[in-house]
Amino acid sequence: MSSKPLVVFTPSGKRGHFEKGTSILQIARQLGVDLDSVCGGRGICSKCQITPSYGEFTKHGVTVAANALSEWNKVEERYNEKRGLAKGRRLGCQACVQGDVVIDVPAESQVHKQVIRKDASVRPVKMNPATRLFYIEVAEPDMHEPSGDFERLKIALHDQWEISDVELDFFQFNKLQKTLRQGNWAVTVAIFNDHTSTPPRIIEIWPGLYEDGLYGLAIDLGSTTVAAHLTDLKSGEILKSAGLMNPQIRFGEDLMSRVSYSMMNSGGDKEMTTAVREAINSLAKQLLMEVEIEKTSLVEVVFVCNPVMHHLLLGIDPVELGQAPFALASSSSITVSASNLGLNEINPSGRCYILPCIAGHVGADAAAVALSEEPNKSDDLVLVVDVGTNAEILLGNKSKVLACSSPTGPAFEGAQISSGQRAAPGAIERIEINQKTKEPRFRVIGCDLWSDEKGFKEAIKDTGVTGVCGSGIIEAVAELRMAGLMDESGLIGSAEATGSARCIPEGRTNSYLIYDQSDENGPQISVSQNDIRAIQLAKSALYAGARLLMDEMNIEKVDRVVLAGAFGSHISSKHAMVLGMIPDVPLEKVQSAGNAAGTGARIALCNISARNDIEASVSQIEKIETAIEPKFQDHFVAANAIPHKIDRFPELSKIVSLPNVHFNLGLENKTRRRRRKF
Amino acid sequence: MSSKPLVVFTPSGKRGHFEKGTSILQIARQLGVDLDSVCGGRGICSKCQITPSYGEFTKHGVTVAANALSEWNKVEERYNEKRGLAKGRRLGCQACVQGDVVIDVPAESQVHKQVIRKDASVRPVKMNPATRLFYIEVAEPDMHEPSGDFERLKIALHDQWEISDVELDFFQFNKLQKTLRQGNWAVTVAIFNDHTSTPPRIIEIWPGLYEDGLYGLAIDLGSTTVAAHLTDLKSGEILKSAGLMNPQIRFGEDLMSRVSYSMMNSGGDKEMTTAVREAINSLAKQLLMEVEIEKTSLVEVVFVCNPVMHHLLLGIDPVELGQAPFALASSSSITVSASNLGLNEINPSGRCYILPCIAGHVGADAAAVALSEEPNKSDDLVLVVDVGTNAEILLGNKSKVLACSSPTGPAFEGAQISSGQRAAPGAIERIEINQKTKEPRFRVIGCDLWSDEKGFKEAIKDTGVTGVCGSGIIEAVAELRMAGLMDESGLIGSAEATGSARCIPEGRTNSYLIYDQSDENGPQISVSQNDIRAIQLAKSALYAGARLLMDEMNIEKVDRVVLAGAFGSHISSKHAMVLGMIPDVPLEKVQSAGNAAGTGARIALCNISARNDIEASVSQIEKIETAIEPKFQDHFVAANAIPHKIDRFPELSKIVSLPNVHFNLGLENKTRRRRRKF
Repeated sequence: MSSKPLVVFTPSGKRGHFEKGTSILQIARQLGVDLDSVCGGRGICSKCQITPSYGEFTKHGVTVAANALSEWNKVEERYNEKRGLAKGRRLGCQACVQGDVVIDVPAESQVHKQVIRKDASVRPVKMNPATRLFYIEVAEPDMHEPSGDFERLKIALHDQWEISDVELDFFQFNKLQKTLRQGNWAVTVAIFNDHTSTPPRIIEIWPGLYEDGLYGLAIDLGSTTVAAHLTDLKSGEILKSAGLMNPQIRFGEDLMSRVSYSMMNSGGDKEMTTAVREAINSLAKQLLMEVEIEKTSLVEVVFVCNPVMHHLLLGIDPVELGQAPFALASSSSITVSASNLGLNEINPSGRCYILPCIAGHVGADAAAVALSEEPNKSDDLVLVVDVGTNAEILLGNKSKVLACSSPTGPAFEGAQISSGQRAAPGAIERIEINQKTKEPRFRVIGCDLWSDEKGFKEAIKDTGVTGVCGSGIIEAVAELRMAGLMDESGLIGSAEATGSARCIPEGRTNSYLIYDQSDENGPQISVSQNDIRAIQLAKSALYAGARLLMDEMNIEKVDRVVLAGAFGSHISSKHAMVLGMIPDVPLEKVQSAGNAAGTGARIALCNISARNDIEASVSQIEKIETAIEPKFQDHFVAANAIPHKIDRFPELSKIVSLPNVHFNLGLENKTRRRRRKF
Repeated sequence: MSSKPLVVFTPSGKRGHFEKGTSILQIARQLGVDLDSVCGGRGICSKCQITPSYGEFTKHGVTVAANALSEWNKVEERYNEKRGLAKGRRLGCQACVQGDVVIDVPAESQVHKQVIRKDASVRPVKMNPATRLFYIEVAEPDMHEPSGDFERLKIALHDQWEISDVELDFFQFNKLQKTLRQGNWAVTVAIFNDHTSTPPRIIEIWPGLYEDGLYGLAIDLGSTTVAAHLTDLKSGEILKSAGLMNPQIRFGEDLMSRVSYSMMNSGGDKEMTTAVREAINSLAKQLLMEVEIEKTSLVEVVFVCNPVMHHLLLGIDPVELGQAPFALASSSSITVSASNLGLNEINPSGRCYILPCIAGHVGADAAAVALSEEPNKSDDLVLVVDVGTNAEILLGNKSKVLACSSPTGPAFEGAQISSGQRAAPGAIERIEINQKTKEPRFRVIGCDLWSDEKGFKEAIKDTGVTGVCGSGIIEAVAELRMAGLMDESGLIGSAEATGSARCIPEGRTNSYLIYDQSDENGPQISVSQNDIRAIQLAKSALYAGARLLMDEMNIEKVDRVVLAGAFGSHISSKHAMVLGMIPDVPLEKVQSAGNAAGTGARIALCNISARNDIEASVSQIEKIETAIEPKFQDHFVAANAIPHKIDRFPELSKIVSLPNVHFNLGLENKTRRRRRKF
């Protein structure tokens, strides 16, 4: 038995005997207990708060001493007066051990705290950010022993934090001297130290103790939309999200038309690079303004995107991605300064990390989905589909993961649809068509009532009914089919053939009128034949991609399906399966993963080990190129019908019975032969 | 005895036995013989040319075989037809050993060749540049095994050159794909790999075999002038030099007035930073145009400069250098990209190296002088003086080196002198005043005749006599003293007192007329009393700095004096000693080192080991701060007279006898009390 007091930490369970008078922070460091500190134990940052337990010691086998810790001291007194210390809390750097004690480290005092993920999640996120704050006291200059301010700062970092060989970002040189004097030779530095062998780098410096935190952006850079999540790099919490349309849309709606724009217009790639960087800047500016955070504290960005967006973001002409063999300029992850990317609403010394690409058509967004959903750690065979303008598809389990990308086009996002719109208040997101009366009812985003419920009109007074979003159009098309208003080939029948006055001729084809606001000078919302065709093309591409991977894996069935992406998370599994978007599995085996790419970005932002993980696992993923695989074309054509094979939906046949109708149209054959170009 | 042929290399003397049929390049690599190759032995770059010796084998103890090398082959044939191979030369990668042979590696085929220094030199320069060319053949992309172009390029560099973990400079990403295809998957890359632990970095890429060489700039960034030397990074040869006035002069003639400008004007430091970077850009542009070199091949810059210029170049406000304790932002060497420094006439990915500073007043220029003159390797006690707007002074030997900087002002460079000008054709550089007649004769730059020689007027027809440069004014002042036209205090006597009509009253003082061109509408060239004062201030500062170091070293005499700097190299030691610029040593012990700071820059540009050397030795140099040392002021005041102590010039007293004259002037005391401000 040692005569030194025993100190036990929870939740880690780490324990040891220490000399009386040793501070809890010192003990935590010696034991490797995860206890935060920015000021290094000077009693000014309060990050090392602990909760000593004086009562419940039996479970840890500790007999508690009467005065297990030193008394509340002046530093704690002052801190409590100024900022307030929660009841029962002590400062770990001030409280010294006097007898056996159990110390609880609350989550907010841990560097590597666990982050709560609200969305359905397979992977817990632990905080392990690349950029952290360190408070240091630097020696003043001495004329007789001349050395640079930076050289003395390096010595302080080494002596006070054991951080060596640190570099100063070039943009910080001008700020260094002024800040040191402003802080009276005490400063807080933000040091970026990631998973690579690159030396630690000071990317920002504040006078005195800086406590306002560090922030990062997780950016999901899609072909159609750009979403940014402003994240606290200490707690992992998303403080605010914002999104906008990708301004590159004016150069081409889908990726290939943007690649063409670059091929046809000298300097076209630079125009698109400028456009997307401006969009990111405006998102960053907006978020910083809304959350009232200084640009200097926005120190990291993680990007997930498809290969074309990846190249355009980096200022690389994407021309090679438009033609076989679809060679990427670089497939590895890239870490680059914000200033190099022209991101001037972010700390210029801040670091941007772009996840690795899997192949020329399978990008960092697919890597992010893999990071979030971890098919490579799944026991059963999982199909992960991230639906966007391009669908990223992953299929696999512990032993093998395949990946491909499928060009679904923007129809799923409400673009190229006559009454289509982005998911926003006023957009129809749910729809049902009565199989007898052929009459629709629907719900719009922002209102809990169905359109046939009482008070609906009053409830939507402010937003109106403005259009149909991606999930709404999926349901509309599936419901048309289930109500017998549309045949297997996707043709909407005429009013005569269907007996519904809502089937209105439009040129040589028919539309189905969902909601008529023309009396109130509002829009008529309907589903046109062209809308159906766009959805058919999109869903065929998606299905064909999944089938191709199943062929490669030599399987006929998957165990479960994960639908990801902003849109993928909102569609109804039933309607998706009626449409034939995804292979048939029991409905309860279809899960929604939320914005998995965005989640992947957030994980990589919060945890540098995750960057290592994904870089390692990407190299293990086998890539299938849809664009050159003849089988993909076959699957694509075969998947055009709705549904193409009723006997492949045993689960579904219990729920819905699809009428065996067929509507003739003179141009039908021509229309059906139209194929998506790649 | 081995049955394998013996191969002996000259000049290295390295030798070994090798299998018949092994190429000389392969053998050289195995033996570590310095034989260049850019194409890696593919017979296309011709850098590995060798001269086999078939006759003179006795001295190496080799009995030569009849057919010691394989026959001249088709590759060599083709190369000879296209470009020509000098007689007796073979390509080392094509010629294979068949029997015992001696192989001479000519200097131009060595990577680490010796560079001839034309100026008086203590240190041989060996080529060991940071940036070198490597030709590689990269695997084409394969859709089924997707990997980025850069990833395949890395594999090629590893397989073909054993270079690992190379990084691609961000600015090269956009160029990579196009260049690889343009070169049909063969490219030449320029890799920067310096003396630090930073990973090797590709900073430029050319299609196919690039043979036009790499270039660097050695820049001596002075307060008054900026000089740039365009250097071949393979041969070390200076292809062309250019210089211009530092445009920062409009913000203040000396360093302290520039620091004041920054203090008094918000953003003043940025104005000065922009000005100096523009000057460097215009020098680079001019040199590239004159030598007809592409900007892309200008890949390195080395800077030497004083601390204020150092900070302003880097974009750091120099305000701290204007007040005690004169703290540098950073004293270490700095390597930074050209783009970060805003140098847009240099390859943006090119690397700039700025030598370390010794102290707040002793900069990278002093470090460069130390690198060039190596006082730390001297057996005898050497005083090295680099005379510019600030004089960098080093004193020491093998056991200890001291350094200081002394604010001499721009007078030595012809500025602040009534008839002063930069050293250029038409400037008076030598002058003699007849001690009896008090009449002058002189020589101008660009003409070998003295002004009293026949044909002088005709010879200077084109340039005229435009002014007096730094070395001319030194001689003029010293000659005035020796001719008895000026007294010990520096006063020019009147025409009456001196008996010379050339002494012309100007206000309350007198000027001495050197050359009158007013009849021809040309300028009158004379030395004014203010000129004398400016020179007195400058030389006193210089002398006081040297004395201060001697006091610190506790010595009364130095063994030798090295005068460096563009100006320092041109002044006559005799006149310098009459003036009392330097401590007294035997005249033959005064050496001229040329532009030592510029040489130091060039050494650091050509050899990365030299960067290591100077970084190590700078940390050993002891710095003396003149600005706060009361003894400096004492020495400065005491050094004002000419000469201040005739008995300290025993050597000089044999050459000249200084008349014991004294000229009165009402305002004299006031003038003498004027001191230089620090």
